[in-house]
Amino acid sequence: MEVQIAVAKVNKYAVSESGDTLEVVERPNGGLSIVLADGQTSGQGAKAVSMLVVRKVIGLLAEGVRDGAAARAASDTLYTDKRGKVSCTLNIASIDLQSGTLVLTRNNPAPIFVYKDGNIDCLQTESTPLGISRNVRPVISELAVEHGLNIVFYTDGLVHAGERRGQPMDVCTALEAMLEDQEPSPQEIVDSLLEHAVRLDDGRPADDISVVALKVVKRRGDEVRRMTVRLPINIGEA
Amino acid sequence: MEVQIAVAKVNKYAVSESGDTLEVVERPNGGLSIVLADGQTSGQGAKAVSMLVVRKVIGLLAEGVRDGAAARAASDTLYTDKRGKVSCTLNIASIDLQSGTLVLTRNNPAPIFVYKDGNIDCLQTESTPLGISRNVRPVISELAVEHGLNIVFYTDGLVHAGERRGQPMDVCTALEAMLEDQEPSPQEIVDSLLEHAVRLDDGRPADDISVVALKVVKRRGDEVRRMTVRLPINIGEA
Repeated sequence: MEVQIAVAKVNKYAVSESGDTLEVVERPNGGLSIVLADGQTSGQGAKAVSMLVVRKVIGLLAEGVRDGAAARAASDTLYTDKRGKVSCTLNIASIDLQSGTLVLTRNNPAPIFVYKDGNIDCLQTESTPLGISRNVRPVISELAVEHGLNIVFYTDGLVHAGERRGQPMDVCTALEAMLEDQEPSPQEIVDSLLEHAVRLDDGRPADDISVVALKVVKRRGDEVRRMTVRLPINIGEA
Repeated sequence: MEVQIAVAKVNKYAVSESGDTLEVVERPNGGLSIVLADGQTSGQGAKAVSMLVVRKVIGLLAEGVRDGAAARAASDTLYTDKRGKVSCTLNIASIDLQSGTLVLTRNNPAPIFVYKDGNIDCLQTESTPLGISRNVRPVISELAVEHGLNIVFYTDGLVHAGERRGQPMDVCTALEAMLEDQEPSPQEIVDSLLEHAVRLDDGRPADDISVVALKVVKRRGDEVRRMTVRLPINIGEA
């Protein structure tokens, strides 16, 4: 099998720094983890918060700490650092090659969508962000890594897209329409959702938006791991 | 402008764990860093070494420590941890949006290729791996981030490809042929170099191989950051 992951990320309009931080890191016992955090508010302050959380989580994962424990530790660290006054959402999606499972850890009111064999599930058990109380618990789901599995999750910029105009985005309907008609790649899924959201915000995103899609497909043949990154930058341009 | 990065990575034949570790992480003041380490020998032990080095480096970069200082610190950590008996190569390539430069940090005998306007430079100042002595110094090059700039670097699996058969790979010639004829994407560059190397090793890589290519191109229009990952896995397959 092959796991394909795509991420698309855009900043709030006219803000140079995204409050969302996303890293994809290798797990010490095989597999990888996608770690996505969204710090409260936007700009530099939010970035510092989401980087603190992601850094804490990936440091612990690298030591072999389990995902749920890493999320709790990051919450306690943030709580201590900001005296309970700043929150941060967190999603961890891990391909764990030891257990052969996909582990989804969520401290984020926004749901996670799971699509397989024509069924779309919306994982939306109540879940609180990190950092605003002691004893924050992540919601954890463990799924078998199987051919045809699709996962989609995102930060709240996607949830709130269009609210300014009174036309909030219905992510579930948008996803269903896409997944039922075709077999979109993860890249197509994230690009389509992000484009939809930015359109609802009249091309000026009201918040940072990050969208992640993961898909398990049949192996294409070679054993090569691949990664690509595209980073738009503004250096020396008018 | 837009920075495009591609990575391709393959394990030594019949070894399930790569001794190479590669992470792409965001920099706290904007931009990103690609961190590639190759631990001595192969398999689990080498993986632990390269993960130790990469973890140390990305932790320090996240705190705002400069690349060269992070490389030195990782060397001292490895030296202390393994009492100077285990080496690890390290490459850091950073897009630093504060300085508008690309910073290349190298503790790796393997060269870095820089291609621009029809000229290919081979950065091959003598450079030693981390961990085997005190006072290890990285070789640092700083380049302006300009349209048309191409960078290629890799671990020594690429250098040693074909040696078993007495047909060692000439990376520079292979790269020159590719860059002069077309305008290959980073993905095409890494795939082509890796395929070439694996062919020289008769389809059974004699070592872990990781290849990274980076290219600065004109902006395509949108402000979206994108990442894709493809991870072949062996779960529940005969």
